[in-house]
Amino acid sequence: MGAAAWLGIDLGGTNCRLALIDARGRVRARRVMSTRAAQGPDAVLGRLGSAARELIAEAQERQLGARGIGVACAGVIDPRRGVVVYSPNLPGWRDIAMVKRLTVATGLPVVLGNDADLYAWGEYRFGAGRGRRDLMCFTLGTGVGGGLIVGGRLVSGPLGTGGEVGHVMVEPQGRRCGCGAQGCLEAYSSATGLKGMLQEALQAGRTSRLEPDDDVKAMAAAARDGDELARELFHRAGRALGRAMVAVAMITGVGLMIMGGGVAAAWGLMEAAAQQEIKQRLHIIDPGRLRVKLGELGDLAATMGAAALAKEAGVSPG
Amino acid sequence: MGAAAWLGIDLGGTNCRLALIDARGRVRARRVMSTRAAQGPDAVLGRLGSAARELIAEAQERQLGARGIGVACAGVIDPRRGVVVYSPNLPGWRDIAMVKRLTVATGLPVVLGNDADLYAWGEYRFGAGRGRRDLMCFTLGTGVGGGLIVGGRLVSGPLGTGGEVGHVMVEPQGRRCGCGAQGCLEAYSSATGLKGMLQEALQAGRTSRLEPDDDVKAMAAAARDGDELARELFHRAGRALGRAMVAVAMITGVGLMIMGGGVAAAWGLMEAAAQQEIKQRLHIIDPGRLRVKLGELGDLAATMGAAALAKEAGVSPG
Repeated sequence: MGAAAWLGIDLGGTNCRLALIDARGRVRARRVMSTRAAQGPDAVLGRLGSAARELIAEAQERQLGARGIGVACAGVIDPRRGVVVYSPNLPGWRDIAMVKRLTVATGLPVVLGNDADLYAWGEYRFGAGRGRRDLMCFTLGTGVGGGLIVGGRLVSGPLGTGGEVGHVMVEPQGRRCGCGAQGCLEAYSSATGLKGMLQEALQAGRTSRLEPDDDVKAMAAAARDGDELARELFHRAGRALGRAMVAVAMITGVGLMIMGGGVAAAWGLMEAAAQQEIKQRLHIIDPGRLRVKLGELGDLAATMGAAALAKEAGVSPG
Repeated sequence: MGAAAWLGIDLGGTNCRLALIDARGRVRARRVMSTRAAQGPDAVLGRLGSAARELIAEAQERQLGARGIGVACAGVIDPRRGVVVYSPNLPGWRDIAMVKRLTVATGLPVVLGNDADLYAWGEYRFGAGRGRRDLMCFTLGTGVGGGLIVGGRLVSGPLGTGGEVGHVMVEPQGRRCGCGAQGCLEAYSSATGLKGMLQEALQAGRTSRLEPDDDVKAMAAAARDGDELARELFHRAGRALGRAMVAVAMITGVGLMIMGGGVAAAWGLMEAAAQQEIKQRLHIIDPGRLRVKLGELGDLAATMGAAALAKEAGVSPG
């Protein structure tokens, strides 16, 4: 059956990404399909199984034998039972036995993890965190997720909230977050947070070339063109990130912060404010020791992290 | 030489505590001596070596053979080199080769660690954290220190700041902390923070039975007697602790917070505010899952943690 390979799957609310990696971590085949989440778990799992089987067969023709599958999924995951307990972007997904069903569909061993955790794991194994043992990965998307790696291990802790940096408080009386609390990082540095701040500012009469429905891409373009309001909003997002980074550094001693997710494309607009905040708030060590890097794997980080997880689960000796 | 025992030493700016524990973690002998830090490192180390030798000889008479020594010390410690790099409460201590000198003085293997870390380690091994693998220990004293244990290991991280919860920001525009930053936990929930808030309030014309020079003990007594200002200051300290606890829970997933140090004696005056803050700010999980416990070992926590460290270093097979 040739050289060993592992299939990573990143199941998102809009798209589902699949990639096959070999023992050296090279991507040997990949595919993107629409999740069509509205069709419900059975339909999604059916198409997911087919796509996985196709990719595995395709690999076999190229002398690559798939040994296992790793799946990354947003929401509340029970990795031990292999169950998606609840996923906010996948309507109807309640206690779905992902591991069992995908094992039946493919005949391969399957492991399951949280998408932000596996994003961090991908960057750790193959991206901006290669060669380091300790890092925090921020995933700036619709919300803000994160994955914490300490001494080469993902930390989720008994509460299961390890790495949930999106809900670290950065402003005690600040904006209301989707979680219900006030002043969470996510209320400033996610796409939702940035768009919410834009709408509030426009409603308050601030002038800008931006419209209330503009997205983060449009906001970033406006900021780069010198739009004052847009620049200010990214500044607020960067300041919030700087505060959260200092909290991570003080609590864990981790010195490498990796910025991932779609909103990280605008990191250049947030960086100065984040660094200013770090300098202002990090006194007990040289603030220059806290390093911030952009992720390197982009859209494929969680997929590759999932494949790496399958590989490391050692479910099938090569 | 009889049953095995290990000597723990907690070297503080005022007192130095020594305790001998056996393989089951029972304290078999103990001593407290004045550090007399003003005499400088050589004199302190001389007396420390004598006290250690005495305790070891005393133990031997009772059929206990000391196998190793663990030392807890405040400040910047380099455990690998066994060096006290700098200690704020020990004048003149700069790059002191503690391990080497105490080994020469006693003939026993010596290990060295940070006092807040070893406080946490003591509570983990023998106190309020027994049987748990993940906890955060807050030491509320002159400052606020902390020790983070994840998966049964102390976390200090590449920055060496792991567990430094005293410098987690709880109020962006808040009180100036001794470290130079604004709004650190330590500026509210340490003895220094509480006394500073008292002085500010009295200067601002607040009425209270307290005087500007009163200490935390007096403040706690006044609060218990219903003094409004005193109650309010402990409320602020508790609120700050609640915020820091939520940050720890979100970043690490650790669900057990242990309150140690002298100021923790007033925990009853801070608890309601801390719990209120946790309920208000912890939304993504049931806030009741975050448990707060008082430390159980009191003054002896770091000493016992140091002895446990020596035991676990396995420096001399029993």
